[in-house]
Amino acid sequence: MKRLLDEPALRSLARGCAVLGTGGGGDPRIGLLLALQALEEVGPTELVDLDDLPRDALIMPCGMVGAPTVHIEKIENGGEGAVLREHLERLTGRTVAALMPAEIGGSNGLLPLTWAGRMGLPVVDADGMGRAFPLIPQVSMHLAGIDPNPGVMTDERGNVVVFRAISGAWMERLERSAAVEFGGAGAATEYIMTVAQARDGAAVRGTFTLAIKIGDALNTAVGDSMAALVAVTGGFPLVTGKVTDVERRTTKGFVRGSVVVEGLGDDAGRLLRLEIQNENLVALEQGRVLASVPDLITVLDSETADAIPTERVRYGQRVTVIAMQCAPIWRSQFGLETAGPRAFGYDFDYVPVEELAGAYA
Amino acid sequence: MKRLLDEPALRSLARGCAVLGTGGGGDPRIGLLLALQALEEVGPTELVDLDDLPRDALIMPCGMVGAPTVHIEKIENGGEGAVLREHLERLTGRTVAALMPAEIGGSNGLLPLTWAGRMGLPVVDADGMGRAFPLIPQVSMHLAGIDPNPGVMTDERGNVVVFRAISGAWMERLERSAAVEFGGAGAATEYIMTVAQARDGAAVRGTFTLAIKIGDALNTAVGDSMAALVAVTGGFPLVTGKVTDVERRTTKGFVRGSVVVEGLGDDAGRLLRLEIQNENLVALEQGRVLASVPDLITVLDSETADAIPTERVRYGQRVTVIAMQCAPIWRSQFGLETAGPRAFGYDFDYVPVEELAGAYA
Repeated sequence: MKRLLDEPALRSLARGCAVLGTGGGGDPRIGLLLALQALEEVGPTELVDLDDLPRDALIMPCGMVGAPTVHIEKIENGGEGAVLREHLERLTGRTVAALMPAEIGGSNGLLPLTWAGRMGLPVVDADGMGRAFPLIPQVSMHLAGIDPNPGVMTDERGNVVVFRAISGAWMERLERSAAVEFGGAGAATEYIMTVAQARDGAAVRGTFTLAIKIGDALNTAVGDSMAALVAVTGGFPLVTGKVTDVERRTTKGFVRGSVVVEGLGDDAGRLLRLEIQNENLVALEQGRVLASVPDLITVLDSETADAIPTERVRYGQRVTVIAMQCAPIWRSQFGLETAGPRAFGYDFDYVPVEELAGAYA
Repeated sequence: MKRLLDEPALRSLARGCAVLGTGGGGDPRIGLLLALQALEEVGPTELVDLDDLPRDALIMPCGMVGAPTVHIEKIENGGEGAVLREHLERLTGRTVAALMPAEIGGSNGLLPLTWAGRMGLPVVDADGMGRAFPLIPQVSMHLAGIDPNPGVMTDERGNVVVFRAISGAWMERLERSAAVEFGGAGAATEYIMTVAQARDGAAVRGTFTLAIKIGDALNTAVGDSMAALVAVTGGFPLVTGKVTDVERRTTKGFVRGSVVVEGLGDDAGRLLRLEIQNENLVALEQGRVLASVPDLITVLDSETADAIPTERVRYGQRVTVIAMQCAPIWRSQFGLETAGPRAFGYDFDYVPVEELAGAYA
């Protein structure tokens, strides 16, 4: 499968990345603008399947690290991917064959595509999460035992930092502190791998295709967009209502806070609380967990069915919150240790969203 | 000139480094212990003059970056220098011929010697300051236009970070944030240079010899140690008295604060205030500047004539404060822009300590 990503594909992709971003990964509108500009300047990026690349070809996972609130004001210069690749190739003595988003969610699903197109490289139809997560080791490559080293970061000014960390957790600490010093966000690559490793479980496959499919469904929906979204994602609507409270702070390279949604219409009288660390982590109602990481929780504009990033949620918005099943790898024991509720400090065990939805139906 | 640094030389060196550290550079007692251990395990390190090395040989300036308060609890593992060298050689494709302290002051004058000895390399009789300064670009290499890149940092755990910064100021920001993440301090190298560059003004020469000479003078002084110190350094005693107030906080990778010394004996009735950022920056008396960066200000125990690092100063200590002329390079326009009073946020111009001493004599 090879596909050239034209403007309609990019527009669908951006909507799909917003849904899969579960609030994080950076505002896809910024990512879309950068992608459209690259399309105009250098032509379309090629999307390829992992099966179309040689087994020993090298894949560079990449994206932005930092707080999405910063990302909407401090824009990439578009050349970060080339800087990351140049240093990675010099460090490893090997040639990068394709780029892959570390996370398909949000702007981070679009940026690697833009970077790849500007270098004449393809982007693979896969990512490291099938969504967006706040921490660097919360990727399928970590679950597959891929070495995070060398990590490379750069900023729009041209500073470059290379990391050889003793663990994924140290990679997270060191990259986060550099992101903070860069002004709150920076471009990064880590967990470089071969196509064979990616095929063997180190990547979540088909997520570009999924994101485009979600965007297409929303774009072509007649009438009830939410129903179209639920049909294409198999998602579970949690509540429809109005944002009545937003608490949000940008600190230590993350956006943290919470959002309260008060039910309207059929949901009148209900109060749903979302807890946030870059992404929506947990949906609570009267102390009951309705959905939690690693499952996806997305806040959408009730009228346009556009997913709203955590940094854009504000008082008064009419929203619908839906939850979706995560990629199966996250439901393994190691997956839950890495990105389940307890990995974020919550004192409860993960229950799959489809079971929770059944229990409270 | 080549010299093997035996135990008496190391003990004198430690005392001299303490004096030249102007309160900073890390407690030389820690550096001395590490140096004595290395002496016992691998024999003495060779001290060489820049004239004894080939012009194109590579010199690695190095030391610890961070807060001295942290350094007295978080000790090096002794192998940091080898890690820095390994990465620097791999990055540059060149071989390091000798090590040099970025700053002769404090523990940072002793550590590179220890690292060099463990690698069978010599240490050159020079440093990058002739004292200790808090900021990374406050070195003679910066004044000489040497590229700070690549910078390399490591910690006692084995994490390694490589920096390619767009300026010395960005090297400072990025290394400082990594030091904070490492727990407050880390080992670093930057401003790699050739022997020809070092000879041509990019290094402050003869500072090991000077530090040993100062230590020898203190060790062999009969009676008045302070007089011996003043004789060997050409220094100016500012006050003799008692520490009556210490304000000190470890924040953002620095020790900041102030010390008040109340005069005793001939100095009864006088109050001298020292302002600190890792090092003693300014000595004030009733709003008058008695001495300031880039000149050296050192607090010594009045009885033992041992210099007291800023992190060890405490209420009740009987101390003598002396000021000494800095290396001439710091008195150039660029030198003062880099490390003069205004570089630290003070709103006054630098006046050489010998002029100030004359004015208030």
